[in-house]
Amino acid sequence: MAKQKTAISPTRVEDYPEWYQQVIKAADMAENSPVRGCMVIKPWGYELWENIQRVLDDAFKATGHHNAYFPLFIPKSYLEREAKHVEGFAKECAVVTHHRLEDDGKGGLKPAGELEEPLVVRPTSETIIGEVYSKWVQSYRDLPLLINQWANVVRWEMRTRLFLRTAEFLWQEGHTVHASSEEAMEETRKMLDVYADFAENWMAMPVIKGEKTEGERFPGANHTYCIEAMMQDRKALQAGTSHFLGQNFAKGFNIQFQSESGDREYAWTTSWGVSTRLIGGLIMTHSDDDGLVLPPRLAPSHIAILPVLRGEGDAEVLAFCEKLKAELESKAFAGRVIRVELDKRDLRGGEKRWGWVKKGIPFIAEVGPKDLAKESVFLQRRDTGEKAAVKATEFVETIGERLQEIQDNLLSRAKAHREENTRKIDTKEEFEAFFTAKNKNKPEIHGGFALCHWAGTAEEEDRIAKDYKVTIRCIPLDDTEGPGTCPFTGKESPQRVVFAKAY
Amino acid sequence: MAKQKTAISPTRVEDYPEWYQQVIKAADMAENSPVRGCMVIKPWGYELWENIQRVLDDAFKATGHHNAYFPLFIPKSYLEREAKHVEGFAKECAVVTHHRLEDDGKGGLKPAGELEEPLVVRPTSETIIGEVYSKWVQSYRDLPLLINQWANVVRWEMRTRLFLRTAEFLWQEGHTVHASSEEAMEETRKMLDVYADFAENWMAMPVIKGEKTEGERFPGANHTYCIEAMMQDRKALQAGTSHFLGQNFAKGFNIQFQSESGDREYAWTTSWGVSTRLIGGLIMTHSDDDGLVLPPRLAPSHIAILPVLRGEGDAEVLAFCEKLKAELESKAFAGRVIRVELDKRDLRGGEKRWGWVKKGIPFIAEVGPKDLAKESVFLQRRDTGEKAAVKATEFVETIGERLQEIQDNLLSRAKAHREENTRKIDTKEEFEAFFTAKNKNKPEIHGGFALCHWAGTAEEEDRIAKDYKVTIRCIPLDDTEGPGTCPFTGKESPQRVVFAKAY
Repeated sequence: MAKQKTAISPTRVEDYPEWYQQVIKAADMAENSPVRGCMVIKPWGYELWENIQRVLDDAFKATGHHNAYFPLFIPKSYLEREAKHVEGFAKECAVVTHHRLEDDGKGGLKPAGELEEPLVVRPTSETIIGEVYSKWVQSYRDLPLLINQWANVVRWEMRTRLFLRTAEFLWQEGHTVHASSEEAMEETRKMLDVYADFAENWMAMPVIKGEKTEGERFPGANHTYCIEAMMQDRKALQAGTSHFLGQNFAKGFNIQFQSESGDREYAWTTSWGVSTRLIGGLIMTHSDDDGLVLPPRLAPSHIAILPVLRGEGDAEVLAFCEKLKAELESKAFAGRVIRVELDKRDLRGGEKRWGWVKKGIPFIAEVGPKDLAKESVFLQRRDTGEKAAVKATEFVETIGERLQEIQDNLLSRAKAHREENTRKIDTKEEFEAFFTAKNKNKPEIHGGFALCHWAGTAEEEDRIAKDYKVTIRCIPLDDTEGPGTCPFTGKESPQRVVFAKAY
Repeated sequence: MAKQKTAISPTRVEDYPEWYQQVIKAADMAENSPVRGCMVIKPWGYELWENIQRVLDDAFKATGHHNAYFPLFIPKSYLEREAKHVEGFAKECAVVTHHRLEDDGKGGLKPAGELEEPLVVRPTSETIIGEVYSKWVQSYRDLPLLINQWANVVRWEMRTRLFLRTAEFLWQEGHTVHASSEEAMEETRKMLDVYADFAENWMAMPVIKGEKTEGERFPGANHTYCIEAMMQDRKALQAGTSHFLGQNFAKGFNIQFQSESGDREYAWTTSWGVSTRLIGGLIMTHSDDDGLVLPPRLAPSHIAILPVLRGEGDAEVLAFCEKLKAELESKAFAGRVIRVELDKRDLRGGEKRWGWVKKGIPFIAEVGPKDLAKESVFLQRRDTGEKAAVKATEFVETIGERLQEIQDNLLSRAKAHREENTRKIDTKEEFEAFFTAKNKNKPEIHGGFALCHWAGTAEEEDRIAKDYKVTIRCIPLDDTEGPGTCPFTGKESPQRVVFAKAY
């Protein structure tokens, strides 16, 4: 078999969207299901989600939140109670109208038992949770109420893409209630920080924290904050959001409490969420033309040991590999026991090795009779492709540092990529040049994050979106530069915002 | 306030079903939601579920299973492909028929965008997973396929009861594929053992492992195995099931593989599940007239420390309590760090204490100035009600043993209860007397598990169900007695079966 140049075809430069699909397929992470818009998350993808869940769940609990579970279904009338919210979600939701199937007289089944009121499969749970909270919250003593839910939600998206946009997806949604506006805002920002910390320190995906403009706000929110990451094709990915809902849902669902001074007041609520979309972001931040690259702190497994089996001497090689596996698994990294795959499958060495490369495992350790003689392993590091013979004892001793080195390298690589492709832009012409592709097959020669002053209206924002397919991703929270002139309107602008093409 | 005799009213003897609802309410575990048949699982109930999940998930992984996630929706036509399966589930399922809501011209919304094919919200996932597996399974090398899913499912039950029977519930469903009948049967039985072990060693709930009769089988299964537990009112609760599906779903969904000898063969499949119903079983196995009693190995929290605050000397008491908390939390029990609630709320001592009693926390430790002087705590043990002053250092040193003692006591208490209320029955008259209540307000004076020989038909089984509201819970797997005479038919019976009233 002729050696392939890259394991994934097409490469990123050739066709980034198709490369993305092929990486997922090659790593065996997920696939489209026979049900329109829904995906099947396969074990290698689901274990990544389990690791994401575990770390975030610990962070939520450490910040005082408890998990609970609310119904999948939302009565239609609940959605109607918050005007902007229903406008945002009614156009794409799964509606349950019947509660059984009966003989249709043609050998098949038809829906029967029509419901008095249709139920919507939750696209998000502010309304049903708001209704429940209105009973739980009576006095200032009941506040703050800090609850999170891990759940599936459904939004009837017409154009879906694995992990990034699917009709059903998995997520967590935090829903909190507070006695004051200040406290609710503090919560909103605190959870944004939790997300940003997770993205950088666990996913090795640098993010910009910022606020959305009015047009991009969550339907029903007063302020929506987000973390935005840059993918390898320079497009932005919104990776998490945290919403300050003011008293909108408290008024829609009558969440009132008696204050310390004895008055009845409407409460202040927040909501915040991240989803399986994070997996899409992780893939597009680190992977290369040989497939998935995983940050070791979240990788389902850390090391694949591949015994080179030739018949003679196999027993010794296998015994050595088993011992190595046990020694590695006695170590921990980032709060988890190190996980090792001992791959004894009867496959050619190259096929086996490429399989693990495509799955993004941080290290592949090959062990043949010659390595055994020297008590060493032949190590391949996924992110850099470096190969070297290393003494087995040394490998075991240094495994934690080696994994952290990969983690650090991925983060600094992603940071460098973002910095290289972020530019301060002060004229319309520059802006236009920045976002106009010279060649539609070469997405890498244009785009990125444009830091621009902005003083336009929502309509002007829409026009830019239409003309350039570019949107304001966020108004960064860490702006240090201050005011300037908006190149589109010539008006004074309080700070630069981030413009980008986006997923 | 006059001291109540018991914290829960009514008591178990007075009204067992209502007592059950009141225990859940008093422990703040769950409540009925505004959506028909769906419950809200509150933090104290959900944490119990998280602990159940963690232990079972570890057991599934230790037996070679991986988690994955499949779609919430099942096309109607898939259900139709296995005849018995559709018959079992079509009568009570949520049917999605539309994918948006639009203005109804009367200021409200109506379903719009009718789907070409209605979708059913999964009541269980054999069909959708069968369809997916038919693509994954090609060769004997792909087998066994060992996958589990944690998910929500919906069955449109008309009469619901918190945890025991709800329209939406949370569960896990294992779905495996094997090359041979023997291997599939081995898997079916292995997972039943995992469930039985979990019930006994973690929930402290003894169970009988057995097989269901034909009438009680899972729709589409060749054999259904179950674990059955006895509740305090002597009724049986089916706590988990494991199904040998033969080749029924393999044929319905064309799951075929090429065998080692090169033939195309239909595969053999299994499925197995437990749900949030386990929480109902746990409550009804251990709780008493003062509320919830929790097995320590699954308790959300182990110890409540209640500082007795009087103004003077409070700082010292609180410092002592904080130190005690930290020391206890440095210990582990049953694979988890010990969790302690330091309850500083401004409530009267009695109110606070009763709150924790009702929540079933294994230990309450009160600390006042006098205890402080002796460096002791005033300890109350939930299962026995024992109270004693104990040196704080001794309490910390022995906490693991003390928790295990409660765990053991709960199991032996439950076993004794089951043994006291299990009887070998050899005549129809005895059977009738055993199951006829002398007084409908005194359910404790009748019932239990009747071990009877049985050689009747499915119709005769139905008649007994109608006449006595008693069913065959299972044909025990561990029968040692062998054949005898069926008191209903006079025919030879291979072994005794378990008859009981059931949830």
